Amino acid sequence: MKARIHVTLKNGVLDPQGKAIEHTLGSLGFDGVNEARQGKFIELDIQETDEAKARETVTAMCEKLLANTVIENYSIDLEQ
Amino acid sequence: MKARIHVTLKNGVLDPQGKAIEHTLGSLGFDGVNEARQGKFIELDIQETDEAKARETVTAMCEKLLANTVIENYSIDLEQ
Repeated sequence: MKARIHVTLKNGVLDPQGKAIEHTLGSLGFDGVNEARQGKFIELDIQETDEAKARETVTAMCEKLLANTVIENYSIDLEQ
Repeated sequence: MKARIHVTLKNGVLDPQGKAIEHTLGSLGFDGVNEARQGKFIELDIQETDEAKARETVTAMCEKLLANTVIENYSIDLEQ
């Protein structure tokens, strides 16, 4: 089963990478960008085939390693 | 309009961040992870409201700044 995890900064948390993208797009002539935010995208190929168990395991992985839940949100998409 | 961009390493390109995730999950007791790959996730809030024009602009942003097309793929999702 494939797990796709998005880890994004919570609203209100300063995002220097996003700001750098905004400014650089502006200096490259791309106007009309109101905001840019950068997060992480993690793809896992896991052996578990039961969706409920897989979600539980991947949630534990996010809580323990993949996301810093003080400043980051995560979302999980599973696909057989 | 919101643009969600996934930038991932092409197949065959070494992914040290992904390998680090694999090994660390293993040492935390999460068995059954065949592979982990890490990419970037960029959210842009853009003023353009026409979907075709927005896709063209965001594609140009990816080619010029957001992705290194020698080693990375990108995909774009647009949402009003």
